[in-house]
Amino acid sequence: MTCLAIHGGAGALPPSDLTPERAENFHRALHAALLVGQRMLAAGRSSLDAVEATVVALEDNPLFNAGRGSSFTREGEVEMEASIMDGATRQAGAVMLLERVRNPVRLARRVMQRTPHVALGGTAAERFAIEEGLAMESKDYFFTQDRWDAMVRLRGTSETGLSEDIVVKGVAVAGPDAMSTVGAVACDAAGNLAAATSSGGTTNKFAGRVGQAGIVGAGVYAHNATCAVSCTGEGEAFMRGVVAHDIAALIEHRGLNVVAAAELVVRTRLPGRGGIIALDRHGNFTLPYNTVGMYRGWIDALGVIHTAIYETSRAWPASTA
Amino acid sequence: MTCLAIHGGAGALPPSDLTPERAENFHRALHAALLVGQRMLAAGRSSLDAVEATVVALEDNPLFNAGRGSSFTREGEVEMEASIMDGATRQAGAVMLLERVRNPVRLARRVMQRTPHVALGGTAAERFAIEEGLAMESKDYFFTQDRWDAMVRLRGTSETGLSEDIVVKGVAVAGPDAMSTVGAVACDAAGNLAAATSSGGTTNKFAGRVGQAGIVGAGVYAHNATCAVSCTGEGEAFMRGVVAHDIAALIEHRGLNVVAAAELVVRTRLPGRGGIIALDRHGNFTLPYNTVGMYRGWIDALGVIHTAIYETSRAWPASTA
Repeated sequence: MTCLAIHGGAGALPPSDLTPERAENFHRALHAALLVGQRMLAAGRSSLDAVEATVVALEDNPLFNAGRGSSFTREGEVEMEASIMDGATRQAGAVMLLERVRNPVRLARRVMQRTPHVALGGTAAERFAIEEGLAMESKDYFFTQDRWDAMVRLRGTSETGLSEDIVVKGVAVAGPDAMSTVGAVACDAAGNLAAATSSGGTTNKFAGRVGQAGIVGAGVYAHNATCAVSCTGEGEAFMRGVVAHDIAALIEHRGLNVVAAAELVVRTRLPGRGGIIALDRHGNFTLPYNTVGMYRGWIDALGVIHTAIYETSRAWPASTA
Repeated sequence: MTCLAIHGGAGALPPSDLTPERAENFHRALHAALLVGQRMLAAGRSSLDAVEATVVALEDNPLFNAGRGSSFTREGEVEMEASIMDGATRQAGAVMLLERVRNPVRLARRVMQRTPHVALGGTAAERFAIEEGLAMESKDYFFTQDRWDAMVRLRGTSETGLSEDIVVKGVAVAGPDAMSTVGAVACDAAGNLAAATSSGGTTNKFAGRVGQAGIVGAGVYAHNATCAVSCTGEGEAFMRGVVAHDIAALIEHRGLNVVAAAELVVRTRLPGRGGIIALDRHGNFTLPYNTVGMYRGWIDALGVIHTAIYETSRAWPASTA
């Protein structure tokens, strides 16, 4: 049985502040991304292909803080990161400090498959992207007014931002936070797991900051024996807690199922705020968060697509495809 | 009881190929670094101070592939990384893609303590180092003929190097490897653990490659509840296995002691070659490796310094201080 779950960040606005129109845009975007992955899995493609293509769809949508629509550093630049992992082989790829690569997750996969390395960063990674023929974009492509305004509001402070939505609202920031990231976890017909994560990082971050989305074990992990995980939230907390691997360890060593392990971590072990999507090769999955909401979606056992921002979810009739 | 252990890489030459003079140089360098840390701990300084200062001593010595004496990328550049973690708070700092910072481990600590972030990389990280007043060096400072020759031998191949020693000997390279790294783990009088790791990365690596020494959970981890760990070896294997955190998970979830956990990982769970130094807050420690040797040293319960490359170790009389 194939399975797919995605997130678009754990930094949703309080329900009273999210306009119905904007909420609708998020639901549609999540649905569209899930459809991409669902069709690939149905066509017999691998979970690795499915998480890559699904994350590309989220990166290309400026609603989400990854690829187009990424946050700005306090110096007014976009610096993106992404990671991908193959649960069958535990091969992994990660990229960081990218300014021009249209789809960081595609580059992460190229690093995994076409270099002897796991992680590449900076301008050298972008030269490799060009050699590989990946699409590059100008600064204009990545620019969105909302993210710029969010950065300008925080610039000059020592704060790094919550999600764009929370920052746009001007809610006080208690400390270093980052809630915006996109990610996907999938299981294919062969029973192989994969996970991918991509992010523009935190608003008003230091130039050069690398977050969890570029770190194997923190923001992404996949191993057929345990689970596939993608994380969103305060990146620094996920890095210090090595959170994606922490879930796998609870499954391996304590015998927890993936649902119990991920929920335990979000409730009690994660040293900060955020959310997780996690699934195992039997199709068990969960999407817990300790924030007010998390943009997310999944495909149920009957193939029906569900999207959600808060507790309640929307089921999409198959005809909406 | 204070405790300190260090490594200078798991890529030692076969005993028959290491000249007595060169072996002596390694023993002396390891001893000198341990003395630095021992004096700090004896003076009541924290484990964090001790691992930082000990790793600085190793970075400053061109015998080791970290700081001065770092390996070269296939483009002929030095790109360094380092990380540090505080077991009391699980605060961590990591830096990557550095070309000019004399002591990457010092910058890692500044990132931990003086930014809201865990990881900074590239030229922006170097600007931060300058703002912090850290010592910067020219390319000449980092240059060593041995490392350059090792890179030139592999340049134009798809290989990345084993340790400088093995590469210098021209031993066939089976695949992507990296054995050279330095690191330290310590427990101070207050019972707090700390770990630090620093590396120039693999010989003939791709420009932009980031290795385990810059990744929390892969090349470094510290948590008072479990252990302090620093790793050396094939960086990519440590990243895919999230190896430093894997040891902590075995202690936390399976009740293994630090010695059993680290040895199990090196023998059966590490998907590659390398070594580990690990200790807990009760002063139990181990320095296992699955390579032919590992430059390493430790201070025993009586305060005697030991250094080793292969199985046998040398005890240093206190008067050698």
